Parts: sequence; structure tokens; C-alpha cells
Amino acid sequence: MMQPRGLPNRRVIVAIGVAALLAVGRAALGVEPADDSMPASSNVPGAQSPRIHRDGRVTFTLKAPEARSLDVAGGDGLGKGPFPMTRAADGTWSVTIAPPVPGFHYYWFDLDGVAVNDPGSRTYFGYSKETSGIEIPDPHGDFYAVRNVPLGQVRTQWYLSSTTGEWRRAVVYTPPGYDTSGKRYPVLILQHGMGEDETGWTRQGRAQFILDNLIAAGQAAPMIVVMDRGYADPRGAAPFALTADMPLRDIRAAFSRFEAVLMHDLIPTIDRAYRTIPDRDHRALAGLSMGGMQTLFIGLRHLDTFAYIAALSSPVIRGNDPDEKLASSLLGPFDARTAFDGAFADAAKFNQRVKLFWLGVGTAEGEPIHSSVRGAVDALRASGVRLEHFESQGTAHEWQTWRRDLLEVAPRLFR
Amino acid sequence: MMQPRGLPNRRVIVAIGVAALLAVGRAALGVEPADDSMPASSNVPGAQSPRIHRDGRVTFTLKAPEARSLDVAGGDGLGKGPFPMTRAADGTWSVTIAPPVPGFHYYWFDLDGVAVNDPGSRTYFGYSKETSGIEIPDPHGDFYAVRNVPLGQVRTQWYLSSTTGEWRRAVVYTPPGYDTSGKRYPVLILQHGMGEDETGWTRQGRAQFILDNLIAAGQAAPMIVVMDRGYADPRGAAPFALTADMPLRDIRAAFSRFEAVLMHDLIPTIDRAYRTIPDRDHRALAGLSMGGMQTLFIGLRHLDTFAYIAALSSPVIRGNDPDEKLASSLLGPFDARTAFDGAFADAAKFNQRVKLFWLGVGTAEGEPIHSSVRGAVDALRASGVRLEHFESQGTAHEWQTWRRDLLEVAPRLFR
Repeated sequence: MMQPRGLPNRRVIVAIGVAALLAVGRAALGVEPADDSMPASSNVPGAQSPRIHRDGRVTFTLKAPEARSLDVAGGDGLGKGPFPMTRAADGTWSVTIAPPVPGFHYYWFDLDGVAVNDPGSRTYFGYSKETSGIEIPDPHGDFYAVRNVPLGQVRTQWYLSSTTGEWRRAVVYTPPGYDTSGKRYPVLILQHGMGEDETGWTRQGRAQFILDNLIAAGQAAPMIVVMDRGYADPRGAAPFALTADMPLRDIRAAFSRFEAVLMHDLIPTIDRAYRTIPDRDHRALAGLSMGGMQTLFIGLRHLDTFAYIAALSSPVIRGNDPDEKLASSLLGPFDARTAFDGAFADAAKFNQRVKLFWLGVGTAEGEPIHSSVRGAVDALRASGVRLEHFESQGTAHEWQTWRRDLLEVAPRLFR
Repeated sequence: MMQPRGLPNRRVIVAIGVAALLAVGRAALGVEPADDSMPASSNVPGAQSPRIHRDGRVTFTLKAPEARSLDVAGGDGLGKGPFPMTRAADGTWSVTIAPPVPGFHYYWFDLDGVAVNDPGSRTYFGYSKETSGIEIPDPHGDFYAVRNVPLGQVRTQWYLSSTTGEWRRAVVYTPPGYDTSGKRYPVLILQHGMGEDETGWTRQGRAQFILDNLIAAGQAAPMIVVMDRGYADPRGAAPFALTADMPLRDIRAAFSRFEAVLMHDLIPTIDRAYRTIPDRDHRALAGLSMGGMQTLFIGLRHLDTFAYIAALSSPVIRGNDPDEKLASSLLGPFDARTAFDGAFADAAKFNQRVKLFWLGVGTAEGEPIHSSVRGAVDALRASGVRLEHFESQGTAHEWQTWRRDLLEVAPRLFR
């Protein structure tokens, strides 16, 4: 109904007064003008930005009166950035972006050429540093929500590595009832990607809630999950980082150092400190991206230790030539007889020993990962190797892909 | 020995060649020119800045070619900042500051008026957001180092609060041997300060290592330590923050909400989930700054629940008038008969019930905290109340004060 012209009536005057009071209150709290948006669940308590709109769009805001240029940039799934922000008269910059893929995304501000965190968000270890992250609600995301079911615990486990001579910290999920059941449990070792660390799977991945919910529903066996830092660099060396032109020799050397930590330090530590079932039938190895490459490298060499192997969004190396560079080793035909030093050469034997061999990938992942996985899957299946090839619909090289992998992998373990 | 003038000899030429090669190697790794400095232990792996010199000075560096002004600023103990940085020709800004107080310090960059984190450092929850931190080595800091002794675990404990209706996360330290001893343990509840959260005592405070080391030396009883988020704000409200002109009524209201969470949700959760000794003689309450105020407010009202009370660097409120403002309530005479609703009125009874009453403070803390504590200590002692007054030499309102408090408090608990 149109408002009649002329002086507003009494009800309108009261409404204006209340609105003005509310506006003052909001200004005092740093609240945005009322719309249908809400602070992201990943915001620090009380932070009003970033905000997620009902239609999934996201508004980012930063007060930077002196800035000359300010963008939002971020990881796969946030959208095709960077997103230039616009300056308001008060020096507050903002931008509203199209709905990102649901799930977790790293992001940062580019403030006059310097990548800086958003003071409104939690940080997560990614890109080899503390990086802002945002959680975009997923209507199908109940599987990683904290819910009113029996909950496990996430523990820190420090240990002195005989391999590196340094103190290391693993993160360990113990299932609901662990403290009182007196039972022994199988173990899933679950590794992060490049630039991340042992906190990735519980903070970005919400692995503990995925397990809690699966176990509560009777869909996964209660298990211990161990997450370690996938680096074992010599003391004082720069952290290992994969590059496209790196020869396989260097990759193997770095993975071998982590393999030594895993086999000689981590697994014995866990088997001592927790009530594990310390045999191959009750031990799984999984990892994402670089952690998936480590899973294939280490797992396929130690089938006496692991009966379950899951590589998530992992580039799959074809050859064994130490001089070959990573980029070229991911292309070309995958030869199931020779790949991974012949681990798949005898398909019948492989199928008998390996209870799960999982290659997951997001349908929106870029190359070479998508083709690399697809080529390996086709060749392995043609050679008679039993495997599960999982495709996460519409997700890229991002945590929502890996949450979905875990949702599907965990029920297939130890059953 | 002076080098003879003229052409350098063969040995010098070789030395120059090696130095040049090393310089190239360092440049490739992003390493600073050789001096006596080392990356701080709080740096993210591989980060070359900030660096700590052998004499304790600290050099901070940030590449920001477009910046017009760049400072380092930080919390108590870092030094009298902000510290203006100087721009080099390549757009890298740096400053070397005088040796800070040993221990942990929050800090940040002021980049053209925006407070941003240092990509080289870990972040810690402080100032109500993720904030960079630096660990300055302390020659007497062995007590909080991870050492080759039996280590406890740090666990996350989620619980659904009946008080707030929300899921909350506590952090729980279990002592070495907890999983296998079958024993029951006393409980210390240990709270953070304003703008911090449940992660403060283990990340900034290193409480787990302080306990591990004390327990290994037989100097503290094995105990469970519970660290919760000291807020219980109504859903959607801005987080509680103390201000000087806040009336005591508002402070009591906020603390009462946390009191309800602590008494009705947290303690029952812990007593169900862990092998505790669930009585007052085996329960302690301690906290720093705002957490110390909460400790006094809650602890003194619940002497049937807590036999040990420790307030660290806590402003001590004198009066009971709900209209009085915080700033004025911290000044003036402390009346032991009336303060805290008469909790100290009967000194003999208080001394009989309370096994430890601890008021700690750093000698370098500012006002009103220092005078507020001192006045309360003098008045309480004069009235016959038994207490321990600890002064941390040369430290301010900072974590090194509170690490030292814990080092002294823990041995006095449960013995």
C-alpha cells in the first residue's frame, strides 16, 4: 500500500523513532544495515563480516581508509577471483560475490599488493601460513555438523621422532566411548595437503564430526584417526613443496623421509599410546592431494602394514624414472604393470590383499589432477585391479570434496 | 691479523667464492643475510621473519612495496611501540627492536592504518581475533618447554550447554598415564583473559608442558586441567567486553551467565567424561585478568565446590554496589568485612575452608591492576586472611607472568 503524501501519521513516526534507535544500536555494535544476511559460522565471535546472504552470496567488508586497492582472493570453490572491493565514503571497502560452492574456502584480502587476513574470520593453516577461511552453509552438510550424538575427542599427541630428532605433534581422534570401553580399535591415518598441517582434517575437514555422525548411525566402525604433519624436512631446511618441474627423485626423497617418520616413529607411538589393533587388517592410510601422493607412495610399498588405501584428489604418478619431472609423469598412459614399481602387476594378488583401494576426485578439479586420476582408474580397471573411483559432484580441489570422500571412505573401512 | 693490501691470496679468493655460493643459496630460500639471528620458534615452518638476535633484539620484516607507512605494534612486554619500519629499495620494510621481555607476545603490523597479521608467525586468539604472536626465548624457560618426560594429552571436549542452548568446546589436559592408570584425578579449571578463548592456556600459556614438567619432577600432583571459553553471551549478542565505566551490575550479569555454564554444564560434563575426584577438596579454580575476576566472583560464591582459588593479574573489585563503575570499584580501601558479599568476613573460617588463596601480579603491570591487587593483599592479610601474594619480577600483563603463576600454583594444589 502506498503511503499517503503529507506528514507521516503517528504510527509511522513511532516506527521511524524505533528504527533510528535500532540503527544507533547497530552502529555501536558494528552491525551491517538489516538485510537477509548473517555472519558466517567461521567468523570470530561477534564479527559482523563476512556475511552470507540467504541466496548464498557473500559480502566481505574491511575498513581501510588509506588503501588504494583492495581485493578478495581465495582458493578453489570461492569463485573466479580476485574480487575488487569498492570504497565507501567512510573508508570501508566491500564486495558481494556470487554464491561460492558450499563448504570451506580459504581466502584473504589483497591490500595494496599485500596478502592479509580478514580480522573477522578464523585462520586455518593453509598456503604454508595462517590463512582466513569461510564456511559456506551446505543444505546437505549435516554430515559434518556437530550433532547431539555421542562425540569422540580430538587429542594432541607429541612424540620425539628418532628419524628427525625433533618433537612432532600428531592430532588423534578417539571415538565415542574410547575412555570407558576397554576395547581396541582400528586406525585410520589421514593426511593433509601441501601447505597444510596436522590440524587440517579436524579444523577445515571436520573429520571428527563426520566420524561421530557415521558411528552414531552405525554406518562406520568406531576407529582411531591419526593426523600428522606430512613433512619431515631436515632441520633448518625450507619446507618441502612440490613443483611441476621437480624430478621424481626429489619427491621420493621427501616422501621417504616422511615414510620413515610414519613407519618408525608415528605408528609405534600410536600403538603404544592407544588401544589399537596393531595389524594390517585394522590399519588404513588415506590422504588428500600431496597427502594422497604420499598415501600411494607409502601405502603401496607397505601392504604388510596397510590393508586400506585411499588417495583423495591425488595426482597419480605413472613412471619410475627418477629423472622424470612431476608434470610429465602425470600425463601419458598409466601402465598398471610397471606403475609404482609394479605394485599393481599382479591384480589378483593385489585384490586379495587390499581391502579398499580408493581414488577420489572432484568433478570441478582442474588438470592435471582430473585426467591423471581418470587415466589411472581406467588403466587399473582394465588390468583387473579392484578399486573405487569416487567423484564429488561440482566440487574442485577443496575441502568439501575431501569431506565427501571421508563420508564415503569411512563406512568401507574395517568391516 | 690484518690482511696485506693488494690482491687477495688464493685462500681468500676461495673463501669469497664459497661465500658467494652460499649467498645465492640463501637468496633462493629467502634467507636473510648471515648474522647471529635465528627465526623465532613461533614462526610458521620455513618463515625467515621475524628473527631473534643473540642479544635478544628482534627484527621484523614485511614486503609491502606499495605501503606508505608500516609499524610493528604489540602487547605488553614487547616494548614501547609502535615501532616504525623502514623501507628498503626492493619494497621490503623492516625494523629491529630492543630485546623484549622473554616469553610470549602478541603483535601485529599497522599497514597504512590497518592492523594485519605477520604471515611469518602463528596466530593466537587474542584481542577477540586471530593475532600474530612471537615467542622470545627465556634462559629460565625450560619449565614450559616440551621435554623428554612422560607427556599428557590436550583434548577437545564438546558439550551442549543447557544454559545457553549452544554447543561449546572446552580444552582438557589429561596427565601422563591417564589412559592406563585407572586412577581418579583432581581438577583445575583454568581460565583465559578478555579477548582470548579456551585455546589460550595451551597455545600462549603452554600449560600442558608446565604440568608435564612439574609432574615428571614430582613437584605437582597429576591433575586434569579444564580450560573453557569464559563467555556465555546470549545468542547473537556482541561478546562481553569489560570497560572502565561499566557498572558492576553488568559485570555480575555477564559473569553470572558464565557461572551458570561452569556450575551446571561444564563441571558435570567433566565429571561424567573423565575420571575426576568430584569434590571440593579436589577442585581448583584459577584464571588470569578477566578470568581472575571470574575466579573471584564465582569461586568465592562456591566454596562448597572449590577449595583452591587463584586469581592471576586480576583487578580486585572492592564494593558490592551494582551501580558503581568498574574503574572506581578498583580504587579506594578494600574492606575485608564487606568485599565479595562478606566472603572474607570470618577469616578463621575462610582459612579453614580455602586451602589456597592466590593473588598474583607482574611487577611491571600498570594501574589499576597493581594497586588493586596490592591493596586487597594488604587489607586481607591485616584481617587475618591467609593468602599467597606472588609477584612475577619484571613482567607485565602478559603470558610470561601467568606461566610463572602456574609454575608456582600447580605445586600447591591437591597436596
